[in-house]
Amino acid sequence: MAQAPATRDGVRWGALSGPLWRARDWVDDVARRSPARLALLVFAAIIAVVTALLSLPVATASGQRAPFADALFTAVSAVCVTGLVTVDTATYWSGFGQVVILVGIKIGGLGVMTLASILGLAVSRRIGLTQKMLAATETKTTRLGEVGTLIRAVVVASLVIEAVLTLILFPRFLTIGESIGSALWHGFFMSLSIFNNAGFVVLPDGLTPFVGDWWFCLPLIVGTAVGAIGFPVILDISRSVRNRRYGQRAVWRRWSLHTKLSLVTYAALAAATAVAIAVMEWTNPDTFGPLAVHERILASLVQSVNPRSSGLATIDVGEMREASWFVTDALMFVGGGSASTAGGIKVSTFAVLVLAIVAEARGDRDIEAFGRRIGSTTVRLAVSVAFLGATLVGVGALLLLAVTDFHLDVVLFEVISAFATVGLSTGITPELPDSGKYILSALMFAGRTGTMTMAAALALRQRRRVIRMPNERPVIG
Amino acid sequence: MAQAPATRDGVRWGALSGPLWRARDWVDDVARRSPARLALLVFAAIIAVVTALLSLPVATASGQRAPFADALFTAVSAVCVTGLVTVDTATYWSGFGQVVILVGIKIGGLGVMTLASILGLAVSRRIGLTQKMLAATETKTTRLGEVGTLIRAVVVASLVIEAVLTLILFPRFLTIGESIGSALWHGFFMSLSIFNNAGFVVLPDGLTPFVGDWWFCLPLIVGTAVGAIGFPVILDISRSVRNRRYGQRAVWRRWSLHTKLSLVTYAALAAATAVAIAVMEWTNPDTFGPLAVHERILASLVQSVNPRSSGLATIDVGEMREASWFVTDALMFVGGGSASTAGGIKVSTFAVLVLAIVAEARGDRDIEAFGRRIGSTTVRLAVSVAFLGATLVGVGALLLLAVTDFHLDVVLFEVISAFATVGLSTGITPELPDSGKYILSALMFAGRTGTMTMAAALALRQRRRVIRMPNERPVIG
Ligand SMILES: [K+]
Ligand SMILES: [K+]
Repeated sequence: MAQAPATRDGVRWGALSGPLWRARDWVDDVARRSPARLALLVFAAIIAVVTALLSLPVATASGQRAPFADALFTAVSAVCVTGLVTVDTATYWSGFGQVVILVGIKIGGLGVMTLASILGLAVSRRIGLTQKMLAATETKTTRLGEVGTLIRAVVVASLVIEAVLTLILFPRFLTIGESIGSALWHGFFMSLSIFNNAGFVVLPDGLTPFVGDWWFCLPLIVGTAVGAIGFPVILDISRSVRNRRYGQRAVWRRWSLHTKLSLVTYAALAAATAVAIAVMEWTNPDTFGPLAVHERILASLVQSVNPRSSGLATIDVGEMREASWFVTDALMFVGGGSASTAGGIKVSTFAVLVLAIVAEARGDRDIEAFGRRIGSTTVRLAVSVAFLGATLVGVGALLLLAVTDFHLDVVLFEVISAFATVGLSTGITPELPDSGKYILSALMFAGRTGTMTMAAALALRQRRRVIRMPNERPVIG
Repeated sequence: MAQAPATRDGVRWGALSGPLWRARDWVDDVARRSPARLALLVFAAIIAVVTALLSLPVATASGQRAPFADALFTAVSAVCVTGLVTVDTATYWSGFGQVVILVGIKIGGLGVMTLASILGLAVSRRIGLTQKMLAATETKTTRLGEVGTLIRAVVVASLVIEAVLTLILFPRFLTIGESIGSALWHGFFMSLSIFNNAGFVVLPDGLTPFVGDWWFCLPLIVGTAVGAIGFPVILDISRSVRNRRYGQRAVWRRWSLHTKLSLVTYAALAAATAVAIAVMEWTNPDTFGPLAVHERILASLVQSVNPRSSGLATIDVGEMREASWFVTDALMFVGGGSASTAGGIKVSTFAVLVLAIVAEARGDRDIEAFGRRIGSTTVRLAVSVAFLGATLVGVGALLLLAVTDFHLDVVLFEVISAFATVGLSTGITPELPDSGKYILSALMFAGRTGTMTMAAALALRQRRRVIRMPNERPVIG
């Protein structure tokens, strides 16, 4: 790096002073050598800033400085778009605090989608991100090139979807008697919370009043699903629709294996969840019992997208049956789509494992789906992601059992909710000791950045060592 | 099958009458077409006979006919060498009932080891059991040939080990003041229970009085480990020791990959368990608290072989900490060695998954251990066994949560204990409704026969379809 700073990118960077240049050099260096590590650093830095802002006295409604454990927990929960809270978002934080949380959600959601998309792009195109970045540096034209286009697409698409959601929800809040300002703020906040699968709620009475409200819940379901399916799928579908005029083939035939696998698995899991929750909660006097039939159906639909992974429940999760918790545990662990705001081991990972077992049961040599072969390296990657996810959950549950007197049912639920950045809670999170809050914070961070960066790091590394037959691999993790 | 019965095997079968011939033809037929299905049928038939015997009034101490659910549960628990009980073995059943249970354990233990060894032999030698049996039928010499030798070896080895254990335990029971008859019966019963990892106890005060008794516990630990490591390993080691004089190389160098993997994984898990249990229970006033240090160490060692899968605990499992239960859950799920009296997904399955992840993390193309390559089909098989095991456990826990008011902590423990035929209990099994007893019975049966026959069926089927490079595969499941 012996070049003079003045020659870099000309005018735009000309005003930067010496220390900033060196910081930029350092970031460049990390990005080139280990994009996964850069992702971790960026997330940690954003969390540190949000924690510092939430630690200001002005951030709380009472004007008292928030305890460090709560400020950190809320910051991690916002930036990792989880939605688990140790204090009530609507009453504990001031307007400033809520804005900080919302900005954390927005940056976290964008960060997750762009970083995962970039890493996924690098993997799926079989072009190492490292070389890509090196090339961009050397040609000195559009820094990061295609990656920049991708980030723009992510930003534009998310803003459009959030704006649409706000336009639908704003009048709803007006019709239930809120002032224009309040309705706008609630509509805006909830739209970001929904699309980013953030799970935060600023409504003073929570979401339970909306349990039978189709106007509120339908946008919630659709917005959650779109946010959770993952940006590669959204891009793939929109590209196939845009190019429709040039061909006669059905649109879905041009979708990638990853898109098909993700959509089918997501839909199957959502349908299974809705049925399972409806069956188990139908007669529970503390959840579905008092509701009308159409409300029970709507609540089941909301619960079907909840574990993957909005965390926005319209019924009291703490009063659900043990069996429902257990089913939700499994579904939260699977999570949403790759490079989405959802967490978990991802639906494509789950799909690959199921396909591997089906192939094994049939005695097939190759694992096939939608006319494509899935290589054994992909299976190994899926096994690694699932196994390490299970290990994270296991260790987290063990630690939480050790530092609290809570039982496995609620501990496992909260741990998986944190790992998969879901944000559903049986109610124990606010009662945890500080050590428990730190354990869940670590799980949210590891769950959010871990599966994503680990899968990318492993996939990128593997690529360099082996020359294999060309076959298509879905994004894992 | 147009041959006249008289020409088959000459004298030995000559006395058989028409219906028996047809039954034998039918068994032959099933064995040829599906050895795994034969294993299931044999197990079900033995369980039916033991259930019928335990349903006789003479089988209980009170002379009252035992409820069907308890007779079935005890029969399944005995034949599947689990040791979970709905009624106290020592007080509820009569001497006749206890003998029936012991015979069930012996037949079940032998059945598991021989069937699994036969299936494992068929898989590991790459010779389909089907062809082998066909060949034996056609040449009409030693029916089943090598398989017969294997069964003899299993029977002889188990009888020798059980006799040695009895000879060690008999004097122990004498020295604590029992009569010769009682000491002999207790020594004999416990020896079979230990080596077959059966988990049944006929001592009126249970095993807690022996918590600090090295004379009783050391044979228990060694006997459990030998029974749980699996017959292929025992055979491999004894063969390598017998052939020692012919070569100069260290004995362990001639061991198969399966033997090395099983031993290393078993030892590592046992050591980790002992340390984990000691750390978590050291100050628990209801378990280790009242014990001397040497007793705590001994109890930790006993607990280290318990989850894999003797089920013979010298401390009150129901009083262990939640964290200890959770660790035990994971260890029970892994279980013992393939073709052993232990259950679970098996240590070799676990080892292959870990090795796959290590290879993935390193970016290696091949999975290697002890200088051998493990093929991707083996990984797929391991994934299938682990995934289906987890599914069985998940469905079982869900059903038990649905039919009882118990919480996940104790339900998961009992379900994994049943699936992995461990027999450790938090104490809820006797309190289950009949539906719960049937669920656990089904889990014991599926856990005992399922992973074993499924793995063999899958492996055998796969073999037929693909010609692959010669590499070594450990036994899975
Ligand atoms: K969430
Ligand atoms: K057992």
